[in-house]
Amino acid sequence: MSSLAADVEAAALIGADEGGGVSRFAWTPELAEANCWLCGRIEGLGLSAEIDPAGNVLGTWEVGEGKAVLAGSHLDTVPRGGCFDGALGVLAALEAVRILQRRGVEPARPLMVVSFNDEEGARFRTGLLGSRAFIGDLDLEDWRARGIPEAMREAGFDFERLPEARGVDRVAAYLELHIEQGPVLEERGVDVGVVTSITGLLGFQVRFLGAANHAGTTPMAARKDALAGAARAVLALRDEARERGGMTANVGQIRVEPGGANVVPSLAEFSIDVRSPTAEGFAHVEAFVREALERIAGEEDLGLELRETHRKAPTPLNEGIQEVLERAADLEGATHIRMPSGAGHDATMLARHVPAGMLFVPSRGGISHSPDEYTAPDQCELGARVLARALELVAGS
Amino acid sequence: MSSLAADVEAAALIGADEGGGVSRFAWTPELAEANCWLCGRIEGLGLSAEIDPAGNVLGTWEVGEGKAVLAGSHLDTVPRGGCFDGALGVLAALEAVRILQRRGVEPARPLMVVSFNDEEGARFRTGLLGSRAFIGDLDLEDWRARGIPEAMREAGFDFERLPEARGVDRVAAYLELHIEQGPVLEERGVDVGVVTSITGLLGFQVRFLGAANHAGTTPMAARKDALAGAARAVLALRDEARERGGMTANVGQIRVEPGGANVVPSLAEFSIDVRSPTAEGFAHVEAFVREALERIAGEEDLGLELRETHRKAPTPLNEGIQEVLERAADLEGATHIRMPSGAGHDATMLARHVPAGMLFVPSRGGISHSPDEYTAPDQCELGARVLARALELVAGS
Repeated sequence: MSSLAADVEAAALIGADEGGGVSRFAWTPELAEANCWLCGRIEGLGLSAEIDPAGNVLGTWEVGEGKAVLAGSHLDTVPRGGCFDGALGVLAALEAVRILQRRGVEPARPLMVVSFNDEEGARFRTGLLGSRAFIGDLDLEDWRARGIPEAMREAGFDFERLPEARGVDRVAAYLELHIEQGPVLEERGVDVGVVTSITGLLGFQVRFLGAANHAGTTPMAARKDALAGAARAVLALRDEARERGGMTANVGQIRVEPGGANVVPSLAEFSIDVRSPTAEGFAHVEAFVREALERIAGEEDLGLELRETHRKAPTPLNEGIQEVLERAADLEGATHIRMPSGAGHDATMLARHVPAGMLFVPSRGGISHSPDEYTAPDQCELGARVLARALELVAGS
Repeated sequence: MSSLAADVEAAALIGADEGGGVSRFAWTPELAEANCWLCGRIEGLGLSAEIDPAGNVLGTWEVGEGKAVLAGSHLDTVPRGGCFDGALGVLAALEAVRILQRRGVEPARPLMVVSFNDEEGARFRTGLLGSRAFIGDLDLEDWRARGIPEAMREAGFDFERLPEARGVDRVAAYLELHIEQGPVLEERGVDVGVVTSITGLLGFQVRFLGAANHAGTTPMAARKDALAGAARAVLALRDEARERGGMTANVGQIRVEPGGANVVPSLAEFSIDVRSPTAEGFAHVEAFVREALERIAGEEDLGLELRETHRKAPTPLNEGIQEVLERAADLEGATHIRMPSGAGHDATMLARHVPAGMLFVPSRGGISHSPDEYTAPDQCELGARVLARALELVAGS
């Protein structure tokens, strides 16, 4: 077994659930154990290890001079998640260092390996907390309201020291390897994806308000059926995403009131998750959601309450880094395509300050956030080799 | 205030909820109190009162000879229901007796007033229990499983004596006045509705089975979105009911799994309530439901589980009684239309054995099963006068 495959297996044991899957959340003993194990692996390669005030694990290969090239991802997971989402990016960065060392490469800049804390945000719904702290983008008031100070204190950290976690100023560029979490690479039989941008994400909570009426005695034409409005919205969003392309749309939550089988729903409340990787597409999806809901509410004679729950603008990734990743893939004989990322990643935060890039490896069946998440060892290895080449190219040697 | 309006007000106090509405369920002290009060009103008119082994309250005007003409409805309610649904039919029957007595009419047959027990079936989901027992259509096994014997015992009744409640053999015909529970009479400005048939009702529980996937990383074309299938079903049913007419369709319950805003739903479970008042329409809606769901499941690549939850065939009401009700309305100067009933009623059961008819009075705004249920006193009065004429015509004098 390769070192990388062994590392993936070892990490998967920490926080493993009895029923399958891995659960490691910010400021919990399980993530602390994983971080501790990671520090040991970092030091085993002769790098210095530290855990910053935000709980990010950093390993530094003190070579060359100037700002460092940073590579990594995260070790926290969703509840009963898989063992590749995040962890593979951290361990592939370690493997890349190992490969460079084995090949006797002396980078012209320091190389750093990182595991950002709380990327998934599963415990407190605080995604990207570690990478946000690393670039100094703190939302202390919100984090305080969510109980982060107490959780940090219990884990031996000090909420007031979060500003000290800003480390981006030491960094020249950021590279993140991650599983695709979608089926595209597998379906096309491609080894790696060079990510062009990280999708923009808009979330809404919608309430259509109609009138509860007897399902047998109210003529069809006299109904104000809130669920019929929601059904139209579900399909309008899907049709638009299918036909237009360059966007996704999902309704993953829905409930109705009063909830009797023989009562016309007076309320339908549902979530909307729409995404687009380009600024133009992002503006379009927002306009489309608002116009479609208002049109449907008008046509169905329903009240409409629309609340934006979250908004993340699309993040274009650095063009130069994309070219480097393609060269690196060519050098390793890895087939590659350019593709957007439909999910958010720590690279979103880093890209605000430094040239950043991402490399995807295939996800079997497109499955992620599940114990069934899987990327074959040779696919992981090849990704790590491409990452090593890219680090060498970016850092110079 | 008329006697009828006073009776409606008095009955509404029994089981009145603090927050508004009336709650009287089978075998509860509230319904027992209402029944006791009703017996007093029956005896006040010189009729004999009895409560049969199924909890039905019967008042008999021992005049004429032969089988009796029966009129009434029910005093039980839905939770926090209105004070007209059911009660008005019982009290209008009392009022009709009062009118005939005042006019010195001596019917050629006995007249009976009835309040059937447990029409709504709110407590044990046992609709029409009283009228079913009255025609001898017992489902003892089901009722036993629902805890009816214990509830009856606590109320001083004996489950084993339910077969003795069969009383339909004493009856020549049945007339039931009821609020429309829909908006048709009000919208058309018509005084009474002569009911042609009681709608047939089919209930289904449907599960569409898709695949949970990441809402950002899974291409739209690769999704198996169970909620999209449900949305199509909601709209297909509605479109069919609107375009075809003579049927209603409602989806009043829906839930999805896994229920994350950023996860494509792998399961959508929902109820279907479809109704049609004619045998032909009933057969059509059933075929339509099955075909539409199978077509959608196929096109959306979803699994389909379809479970029938309830089925009540349509009940045509007696043509001769409809003509009598029209003549009675004409005699009282009441405008009238023929219309189906979209809800079930005790008349469904009686119609299996004897000529049965129903008379609707307007429901303000079509509202029922709500504290806002309302029929104006003069509309109630007119309905009772039409009922009195019809009783006279059916019984002979």
